[in-house]
Amino acid sequence: MGPVHLADTRQQVVARLIEMLREAHARGARWVTFPELALTTFFPRYIYDTPEEYDVFFEEGLPSPAMVPLFDLARELGIGFYLGYAEKCTENGQVHRYNTSVLVGPDGTILGKYRKIHLPGTADPIGDLEFEHLEKRYFEVGDLGFPTFATPSGRFGMCICNDRRWPETFRVMALRGAEVFMLGYNTPTRNIHHPEPAHLREFHNRLSLESAAYQNGAWVMAAAKCGSEDGFAMIGGSAIIAPTGETVAHAVSEDDEVITHACDLDLGAYIRRSVFDFARHRRIEHYGPITAQTGVEVPE
Amino acid sequence: MGPVHLADTRQQVVARLIEMLREAHARGARWVTFPELALTTFFPRYIYDTPEEYDVFFEEGLPSPAMVPLFDLARELGIGFYLGYAEKCTENGQVHRYNTSVLVGPDGTILGKYRKIHLPGTADPIGDLEFEHLEKRYFEVGDLGFPTFATPSGRFGMCICNDRRWPETFRVMALRGAEVFMLGYNTPTRNIHHPEPAHLREFHNRLSLESAAYQNGAWVMAAAKCGSEDGFAMIGGSAIIAPTGETVAHAVSEDDEVITHACDLDLGAYIRRSVFDFARHRRIEHYGPITAQTGVEVPE
Repeated sequence: MGPVHLADTRQQVVARLIEMLREAHARGARWVTFPELALTTFFPRYIYDTPEEYDVFFEEGLPSPAMVPLFDLARELGIGFYLGYAEKCTENGQVHRYNTSVLVGPDGTILGKYRKIHLPGTADPIGDLEFEHLEKRYFEVGDLGFPTFATPSGRFGMCICNDRRWPETFRVMALRGAEVFMLGYNTPTRNIHHPEPAHLREFHNRLSLESAAYQNGAWVMAAAKCGSEDGFAMIGGSAIIAPTGETVAHAVSEDDEVITHACDLDLGAYIRRSVFDFARHRRIEHYGPITAQTGVEVPE
Repeated sequence: MGPVHLADTRQQVVARLIEMLREAHARGARWVTFPELALTTFFPRYIYDTPEEYDVFFEEGLPSPAMVPLFDLARELGIGFYLGYAEKCTENGQVHRYNTSVLVGPDGTILGKYRKIHLPGTADPIGDLEFEHLEKRYFEVGDLGFPTFATPSGRFGMCICNDRRWPETFRVMALRGAEVFMLGYNTPTRNIHHPEPAHLREFHNRLSLESAAYQNGAWVMAAAKCGSEDGFAMIGGSAIIAPTGETVAHAVSEDDEVITHACDLDLGAYIRRSVFDFARHRRIEHYGPITAQTGVEVPE
């Protein structure tokens, strides 16, 4: 998906999503992955101080009013989809904001939500001259874990952007039976935390996606927003990865673009039956620190 | 390291290791990684029924008599090294056999051992016409966890072969402060468990190594035995991987070959300080299944 600028309206954006949904349907697609925060620009690059300033980026209700035309068309076409959006909700009298994705089945049923767990960046500005990465400022850490969802096409799991860099994300979903991982992302081309060669940004993206697919014998459907949003470049590189870790389709433009692949779910079966037969090979008695400690603890 | 055939003697093999150690030293190397089971052929491809048949492949004592010349030269040259070997030991009156590696410091001190945890293959033959993969037959699962070791060049961790396909391996070591991962491997070119394109074998090797390096901001020094051992081809592909996930040196031959790189340990620091700052970003409350369950458990 190409850039979304601050001046773009929800209506304009949803019209683009609808156009891509129609193209995917024309190619025979049964499931579509849309990006993270697909309805707005990647606003965590900007500094806002009050909810009045940043609430314009959030959706309330599911579908939110802006999403309705997309939900309606998908149900009409019989296409399931993943959509990333900024979620504002009130639970037990408290207002919460999450970086969320929803999985909607081909019949229009809402199969479930995921709320982003690995929020990158900082809560306070770092003072970079160009932009910030303030997800920890605008969102709470997700409280739904990494659920998986039974669908007519196998069991799906969802994650969002920076989650894909953490092998824990995919392992938890695979242990819960996921055969397909859907994820959206927005990755700035420039690393504001360190002067890093720009080519590493796409290399790390691909490395994360391919290793996630291979190490869990699962399909990955990853969709970026890309191009330059009001002058801030993002890497793109949307891709479909086979359970062998091989990239079977990838986007080449910096604009709205649909990539499709006929994914054979059985391709992952041999991997899950041999090299990654978890039940036969995993040794949880030696994995303790992964869940017992958060940060590095150097032994005495 | 090129092939070791059944007919090769320990003396012949150790002479080759010594030759490579001298070459590494001549290039200024301070640490050397030798392969898994470096002193013998990769014998788990063969079916043996009694300890009398397979004990010829095992070492007793550290250094075992065969290793002494290597240990002596390394101490003399002031080079530290990793060496994989089949370990037979008696502990509490019980005989044990492990697929083991030892880490020896530049001053000749034995810094520690690692015993392979992720044993691939089967305990009983699968009946493949060409060869078997019987590590679960000849070795017990390692009982030392994934320790890390303070060295004059930073903190090192060790693993062996199939361990490298499991992100849990490297995450545990990184949580214990490892900045360098050393590992040896022997990977058959043919996958006897599934008719898989041969090129995937090296692709999966590299994908595992590169993702391990990147996701933990650590160096990887990986050494294969390669070429054809008595007609059984192995992939090779020994490599040094930077904490950025970039392969900075890799072997190109199917024979004894030394690759070297001047590894800047600080290169990993920026990764561990930003995107993979575990303390700031990991969310262990959502990783439960990784240590709570071994195999897949599909939710109701």
